[in-house]
Amino acid sequence: MRSIVAFYFCYLLCLCLGFACVVLVSVWNTQWRGGFAWDGSPHQFNWHPVLMVTGLVVLYGNGAVLYRVPLTWGQNKLPWKLLHAGVMLLALVLSILGLCAVFDFHNASNTHNLYSLHSWIGICTTALFTFQWVLGLAGFLLPCSPVSFRKLLKPAHVWMGGSILVLSIVSCISGINEKLFFALKVTNNTEPYANLPPEAVVANSLGVLIVVFGLVVLKILSNQKWQRPDASEDMSYSPLLQDDN
Amino acid sequence: MRSIVAFYFCYLLCLCLGFACVVLVSVWNTQWRGGFAWDGSPHQFNWHPVLMVTGLVVLYGNGAVLYRVPLTWGQNKLPWKLLHAGVMLLALVLSILGLCAVFDFHNASNTHNLYSLHSWIGICTTALFTFQWVLGLAGFLLPCSPVSFRKLLKPAHVWMGGSILVLSIVSCISGINEKLFFALKVTNNTEPYANLPPEAVVANSLGVLIVVFGLVVLKILSNQKWQRPDASEDMSYSPLLQDDN
Repeated sequence: MRSIVAFYFCYLLCLCLGFACVVLVSVWNTQWRGGFAWDGSPHQFNWHPVLMVTGLVVLYGNGAVLYRVPLTWGQNKLPWKLLHAGVMLLALVLSILGLCAVFDFHNASNTHNLYSLHSWIGICTTALFTFQWVLGLAGFLLPCSPVSFRKLLKPAHVWMGGSILVLSIVSCISGINEKLFFALKVTNNTEPYANLPPEAVVANSLGVLIVVFGLVVLKILSNQKWQRPDASEDMSYSPLLQDDN
Repeated sequence: MRSIVAFYFCYLLCLCLGFACVVLVSVWNTQWRGGFAWDGSPHQFNWHPVLMVTGLVVLYGNGAVLYRVPLTWGQNKLPWKLLHAGVMLLALVLSILGLCAVFDFHNASNTHNLYSLHSWIGICTTALFTFQWVLGLAGFLLPCSPVSFRKLLKPAHVWMGGSILVLSIVSCISGINEKLFFALKVTNNTEPYANLPPEAVVANSLGVLIVVFGLVVLKILSNQKWQRPDASEDMSYSPLLQDDN
């Protein structure tokens, strides 16, 4: 019972932190960065942090812990499996749109792509996420997937899931840090980053919230007591058309 | 047997990646950043990445996985406990020296401290690491520590250990990214970062190695099969003077 209460406390924290991250990244880019457009201007760039934080961190993290909600354990796993795949697909689509936003902006302003460490880690994160989603679809949802493959895939899928979240957090923090150094300087007619103007405090706080959100999700994922019980474990290997309960 | 082979493969990878990180961060700062000094100059700053990567990532990661080495399982735990505490203390001292290097450099050049997101996450990481080390000493090595406290502390210590490593990786990647944007620009008489000069490739590769090292360490820590077996688990709660075997 204590374990269930502790879970719901962490889960509530995860939901609230995720919501706060989406609000804060949107406020930052609306209030201080001039809002949004899809025209190759810096306003198109503003979609990049909003879509990456919403997709690659918040939706991804919430999709990852879905199976851990005890309320779902007594129920047929199939709808939850589909919801997990659906939330992750939405997270992936938003992440890819977020990448399109920054590539379009760079191309329109003749800026090089993929040279910074942030971009190297970020592109690897999205590539691994795409690979993980396709492999998850093939292994856990397609009826032709052999049981032996699924049994092999399950621990790798869980491990890769946590690793992608770590990579997402690394990408977001290095990106927010980079953006603030680019944007907040006297030559841009703004107070420099070093003076910690309100925008810097808001964006730094967003970074801290992202890290705390990620650690709460990793805490939920790593707790053995919060895993879907063994009794239904075999079902988790059943692909879509074999889920008969 | 297969699990032991897999462990030693991961452990060897962890050792090699850690060694490569220390070599690469040293080469970067010697070859391209002008080497080291302790005089408030940019050469003093160069200690910062070297000491943080060596202490907060490589030594810390290696100290964290010490108990997982199967070779140690049949042996008295006390020497390994002392080695774990010793390696972590060395990691902590190097990290604090790394912070002193950057604070001294900033103060000498009248640059603000602790304004960037990188610095916020970095200072929290070192503070948490200090707290974790002191609490670990009090809980697991002092003879007056009550058993109930140690039992409560163990899972929190393990969880906090992994979280600090995630924070270390986040801090290092955002720091390397920030440093390259500061250093590689035409006004500094260097080729800009966007052209990916050799220094950028080396430092970006260092970042990638740090991330891979961190994921390998987290993989070792998260594998239940690689934890010191239950038989010796009670010993792990025995503080220093009660370790009688």
